[in-house]
Amino acid sequence: MQQASYLINGECAQGVSPLDRGFAYGDGIFRTLKVVKGAPVQWSLHYQKLVNDCNVLGIACPDSDLLMQDVEKLFSTSKVTEAVLKVIITRGTGGRGYAVPETVAPSRILIQTDMPTYDESYYQTGVDLFLCETRLAHQPQLSKIKHLNRLENVVARAEVSESFFDGLLRDLDGHVVECTSANLFIRNGRTLYTSALNQCGVAGVTRQRIMDIAPKLGFTIQEADFTLAQLFGADEVMISNSVYGAFQVKTVGEKKWVQQPLAEQIRIELDAS
Amino acid sequence: MQQASYLINGECAQGVSPLDRGFAYGDGIFRTLKVVKGAPVQWSLHYQKLVNDCNVLGIACPDSDLLMQDVEKLFSTSKVTEAVLKVIITRGTGGRGYAVPETVAPSRILIQTDMPTYDESYYQTGVDLFLCETRLAHQPQLSKIKHLNRLENVVARAEVSESFFDGLLRDLDGHVVECTSANLFIRNGRTLYTSALNQCGVAGVTRQRIMDIAPKLGFTIQEADFTLAQLFGADEVMISNSVYGAFQVKTVGEKKWVQQPLAEQIRIELDAS
Repeated sequence: MQQASYLINGECAQGVSPLDRGFAYGDGIFRTLKVVKGAPVQWSLHYQKLVNDCNVLGIACPDSDLLMQDVEKLFSTSKVTEAVLKVIITRGTGGRGYAVPETVAPSRILIQTDMPTYDESYYQTGVDLFLCETRLAHQPQLSKIKHLNRLENVVARAEVSESFFDGLLRDLDGHVVECTSANLFIRNGRTLYTSALNQCGVAGVTRQRIMDIAPKLGFTIQEADFTLAQLFGADEVMISNSVYGAFQVKTVGEKKWVQQPLAEQIRIELDAS
Repeated sequence: MQQASYLINGECAQGVSPLDRGFAYGDGIFRTLKVVKGAPVQWSLHYQKLVNDCNVLGIACPDSDLLMQDVEKLFSTSKVTEAVLKVIITRGTGGRGYAVPETVAPSRILIQTDMPTYDESYYQTGVDLFLCETRLAHQPQLSKIKHLNRLENVVARAEVSESFFDGLLRDLDGHVVECTSANLFIRNGRTLYTSALNQCGVAGVTRQRIMDIAPKLGFTIQEADFTLAQLFGADEVMISNSVYGAFQVKTVGEKKWVQQPLAEQIRIELDAS
């Protein structure tokens, strides 16, 4: 297993109370991001997402300053240039039962793990995706937010053998939504489409950044629901997350795409801004 | 907050690792049951459900003997006659990412809480339910099992004020499925219907016991999808869980039902078997 260190509410505690509602019900949210020389990349955008997702669940998100103090403490002894940070905010510790206790203080858990290394070919020619049978359920009340109820991702990921980079997920209507750990873009000419995520899926920070960057590169960006046939017919397919940025998709099953310059252009823009 | 004590993998540990996949993704299952004089009520049925639910997720359920050793240790100093036990089984501790590690040992967490006290009127005339706006998503791959992804229950329960006993949940198609913490039965004449749970919902042990008991009391039992209109038109509505057994439903919104003998008959049978 890879190395990991963590802080629980700012302390080097042994573990999270099993009465924490994050553990009991997945009553919380999280974000995963890159840390370079101790500094979280695009922190303000990630913090905005943490606040937004907490708001959806009615959790009081801890102050940015407090989380940054934790980051400093967690990375103070770190010897690596790049690492991955996971920030988890839960509703806090409560008694038995789903009702939110009248007084409850959110828990914050920060976990540092090693930066994964990616095959050079992912950058050059792209990645292979497996088309999962697991479908994402429609739950508009919880779509877009990155909550701790991620069994669908676990079950879907279990379908994906090691020869694939990630698994491609459709919803119950057959629309292509995302990968288990990435958002999805398809390009047709100068238009870039990304799943609308109104019924399911996670709205990643890097997805948002790419939507902001695209017009600068001369692309029209559009949120839409698209089918597998539309994905197969696309000029180019790309996936994104906040650890690796963006990779072109090389294959989904029998379908192959030739190498294109978009993912690299996007990576350059992501690194520059 | 109510009193609670717990064991983590048989030990009086401080907490669960934040790297435990139960915390990270809700990658685990649980059951809640009554314990009388240190003995879990209907343990073999609850254990069957634990095994079944673990199997759905591909988790190796710990042996019944091991869990019973934990129960003995947890309740050895208990001075109360009745208590509530929650048994949580997670996939165990893993690194970052949804993929299940090649070697992973399940975690078991047992939590003892106080037996709640119920208003005498619940037994005599029944309970009031609130009709929740939150809808249950369709996810046939995860329906019936009592997994740790329970945000829908949390969000729905937050709609329910203290003047109601529980919240009534419909799915996205408008079918009435269950309550946030109970299964649901409706009676029409001598037929007892319970939600089929093919798309969502939790198949409780007490639901199963009532399905087994019903024919002895002269009822035909049937699993079905039913609408709110069908529920409103029912002769009687009843909810069940493993802590209180069964309660008649007295009201849902404006709809009222007169007192009926079924829930008490069911409670007597549940206590006798």
